[in-house]
Amino acid sequence: MSEKSQLQIARAAYQPKLPKALKGAVRTVEGKATQSVGNQEDIKALFPNTYGMPVVEFAEGGKAERKSFNVGIILSGGQAPGGHNVISGLYDGVKALDPANKLYGFLMGPGGLVDHKYVEFNDKLIDEYRNTGGFDIIGSGRTKLEEVEQFEKGREILDKLGIKALVIIGGDDSNTNACVLAEYYAAKKYGIQVIGCPKTIDGDLKNDQIETSFGFDTATKTYSELIGNIERDCNSARKYWHFIKLMGRSASHIALECALQTQPNVCLISEEIEAKSQSLDDIVDYIASIVATRAQKGDNFGTVLIPEGLIEFIPAIKKLISELNDTLATDEAKSIARENQIEYVKAHLSAVNLATFNSLPEDVASQLALDRDPHGNVQVSLIETEKLLSRMVERRLKTMKAEGKYVGKFSAQHHFFGYEGRCAAPSNFDADYCYSLGYNASRLIAAGKTGYMSVIKNTTAPAAEWIAGGVPITMMMNLERRNGKMKPVIRKALVELDGAPFRYFASKREKWALGTEYVYPGSIQYWGPSEVCDQPTATIKLEHGK
Amino acid sequence: MSEKSQLQIARAAYQPKLPKALKGAVRTVEGKATQSVGNQEDIKALFPNTYGMPVVEFAEGGKAERKSFNVGIILSGGQAPGGHNVISGLYDGVKALDPANKLYGFLMGPGGLVDHKYVEFNDKLIDEYRNTGGFDIIGSGRTKLEEVEQFEKGREILDKLGIKALVIIGGDDSNTNACVLAEYYAAKKYGIQVIGCPKTIDGDLKNDQIETSFGFDTATKTYSELIGNIERDCNSARKYWHFIKLMGRSASHIALECALQTQPNVCLISEEIEAKSQSLDDIVDYIASIVATRAQKGDNFGTVLIPEGLIEFIPAIKKLISELNDTLATDEAKSIARENQIEYVKAHLSAVNLATFNSLPEDVASQLALDRDPHGNVQVSLIETEKLLSRMVERRLKTMKAEGKYVGKFSAQHHFFGYEGRCAAPSNFDADYCYSLGYNASRLIAAGKTGYMSVIKNTTAPAAEWIAGGVPITMMMNLERRNGKMKPVIRKALVELDGAPFRYFASKREKWALGTEYVYPGSIQYWGPSEVCDQPTATIKLEHGK
Repeated sequence: MSEKSQLQIARAAYQPKLPKALKGAVRTVEGKATQSVGNQEDIKALFPNTYGMPVVEFAEGGKAERKSFNVGIILSGGQAPGGHNVISGLYDGVKALDPANKLYGFLMGPGGLVDHKYVEFNDKLIDEYRNTGGFDIIGSGRTKLEEVEQFEKGREILDKLGIKALVIIGGDDSNTNACVLAEYYAAKKYGIQVIGCPKTIDGDLKNDQIETSFGFDTATKTYSELIGNIERDCNSARKYWHFIKLMGRSASHIALECALQTQPNVCLISEEIEAKSQSLDDIVDYIASIVATRAQKGDNFGTVLIPEGLIEFIPAIKKLISELNDTLATDEAKSIARENQIEYVKAHLSAVNLATFNSLPEDVASQLALDRDPHGNVQVSLIETEKLLSRMVERRLKTMKAEGKYVGKFSAQHHFFGYEGRCAAPSNFDADYCYSLGYNASRLIAAGKTGYMSVIKNTTAPAAEWIAGGVPITMMMNLERRNGKMKPVIRKALVELDGAPFRYFASKREKWALGTEYVYPGSIQYWGPSEVCDQPTATIKLEHGK
Repeated sequence: MSEKSQLQIARAAYQPKLPKALKGAVRTVEGKATQSVGNQEDIKALFPNTYGMPVVEFAEGGKAERKSFNVGIILSGGQAPGGHNVISGLYDGVKALDPANKLYGFLMGPGGLVDHKYVEFNDKLIDEYRNTGGFDIIGSGRTKLEEVEQFEKGREILDKLGIKALVIIGGDDSNTNACVLAEYYAAKKYGIQVIGCPKTIDGDLKNDQIETSFGFDTATKTYSELIGNIERDCNSARKYWHFIKLMGRSASHIALECALQTQPNVCLISEEIEAKSQSLDDIVDYIASIVATRAQKGDNFGTVLIPEGLIEFIPAIKKLISELNDTLATDEAKSIARENQIEYVKAHLSAVNLATFNSLPEDVASQLALDRDPHGNVQVSLIETEKLLSRMVERRLKTMKAEGKYVGKFSAQHHFFGYEGRCAAPSNFDADYCYSLGYNASRLIAAGKTGYMSVIKNTTAPAAEWIAGGVPITMMMNLERRNGKMKPVIRKALVELDGAPFRYFASKREKWALGTEYVYPGSIQYWGPSEVCDQPTATIKLEHGK
């Protein structure tokens, strides 16, 4: 075990809060049969054994009885603060039912199940990791559990270790796969339950049943700390525009939450840009006009938040990328020498996509045309959107200056935050929420459930009043086209333009753009006054009308 | 006033701790006459009125008496956490001597004094900014106070406002200029005192008299929070090498302190690289060999800390830059078309510098040859050293792989931290230290001192035991060549290779390189247990043998 920081030592003693109902023996309250959110007949046909099950809530006043079983746990996909607390909650929950119960962790993600790499948790190991960030206790990985062969390899080791239930911590895809696995084991009558757990800092795994995915709270608070610090610097030096890109490729929840916390001058929301069919030029116009208006009163500084996935939401660029992928995939294209590639691309693009291509700064255009991933696809993630935008804004301002529409100085700084927050020590909210999710999973297992996600609701109330239970994963599914095939998936939650968080932001952004209304959230606090330490995100509060 | 975060609201109530001696009326204890650290005769001749004054300490047990005077304050140069607390400490100190005393702040740096732009502080304004980060209360600026005309313009407004003393908060240059101003006003018998205050996150304003500059504590703790989070991610995902550049161009104190706090696999120290006359290739060799050794046991991940100023400390690059600046400054060079510039440069460089030039990756070489600042100089600060190094390491690893000396995967992520920490809300240490520096300045003024820096010593002890006093600025001076002229300056503190912090680091780094010994400091805490909230930096503890 490595040396520990003072914070880590002190924080180890924190006892996460549990919902009242989970503190003693629980009584299982079952609701009515459920349906999937879409394609009911198809989903039912795909999941005959795990479809239609009721939503479950745990209430106080159950009969205490010993329940003996072993459990396995897997961390799947990108890191999120609180993963270690799901594990410690599950461990404590399982041990409370019978101290002889064992909890195993599969190493480096789902691959550990298939390859039979695992560790057995004990008090010492768990105590080392209570309330810490990261997934390093067992590591994570991106292997997808999708094939029967994997399921059967998994069953071998689960049987060998006497594991009655597997808990999979992951995002939408991993939970979909958890359900496929649950269905397979149920169909085969292997007697192995599978429970999912909603994780992702991106915040896009939420719906009527799931209020928030774990890690979103801590990650956005960490990014907001940094954005607030930069805003304060910006407002002190009064000479830079800071362009700040934030992780999250498929939805803009992170950027939106950070904007609600820090009130920047500009925050782009990919979902809005797509809905309004905006072009890159429209976005540049929008930012440049704010820069110019602020400059009129001598404010040659500001902050701009940019969601990582922006570029793929711009309809024109999306079309360009799609045609580029097709154009560059041919054998002919692959045979063209690198120095002639751009000419080749230009000669082959359709007129409308060529116009988009030509509107891009030269180096971005060549990056799109030249750099490809092993599958031959354009590498969108390599594009430094924050620099692309600031350069295009700078160019626009030059034109505006020549036209007498802009008087000011423009100087930009660039930032990208992602890895800085994914493994932060969980906030009190995430520490409690994750511990509860894990503890709750042990109760779902004891209740014999499979194909369920561990769910904690009423999370804007104090933890004691949280509602613990389970939701059939099939209930959140519909069919979507993936790689050309219709597949059952959990619907990804994008930012809803008629939802309360976005509407609040939209009602304020003009004021924030021209005024300087920065808010400085500061660093996550674990011991201070409750209003500092125990607040959920602005997103969840607005969604719950608080 | 803008909306406040919960942390800001709660933190406003924090009462910074003062040294015991400053809590009541003080007694001034004067030491012996002092000398400058170098060039005594020259410094004495330049500062006849402010040379040789004694070091001053304040002791308890003075006679309480009303002291009436107005004071002005200026924030000079880059932001550092705690500036607002220097001001609130000074305000409280000045008001305690006579509630009728006034404190004025000059706006946007020294320029505000020259241009007569100022604000008068009152309780409401000060209370808005207690214990907050940033310099936004009055803004900062980089105007240098060096000309008699500026001094006289300053005197006009100081006289008009009845200001008896001016406090200048700044780094080594600003404090040097504060002393020049003190000397000028003393020579002219204007009756205006000038007091300096040691600020810089870079940590390079320290010596036998100054234990640390304010802001270094908070900034390095903020960077260490982020580095620790990245290390945790690194150790969870186990697939990336993170190259992290840290602000601080003229010294590597920040990188060293962060390394002591987080135990990364590699931390480069510019001062060592210069002392050992290492080349860029040597550095790349060093990193690549650690990557390769870690890869042997399957650890294809790690963290590398890089001080911002690195490139200028590498002797070969320093020479190349110097020749480039000369080569490109000629009228002939300026007349060469951009596309022929690189050829031109290559034709004109000396053989040894040409070799260095050719060893650089193409885009870095063209950046050096093509991008120049308004003075025609190479723009070293534009070079993304973190990317330069990771690309050169990648290239080296390819060669090593071909030679059978490396088996592994190398994938890099890049970060640069600077603005993220310069305006963080001050740690308890910086909040106390800065408040004490400001309060102490009021006592130096009351004691009639000028040309002194406000100094607080014994800072590894609890605040009550800190020693408050003043040090003649001339005592820290020597002559150094600046822009071709010998000038009196405060000697800049570089990392000392025989100092305790570096020696500790050097004794551990091999272990940290090959093992994975990361420490995760977490975010700055204001309310937790004292061992979490009240620790000074590792640098200062090691320097004091703690």
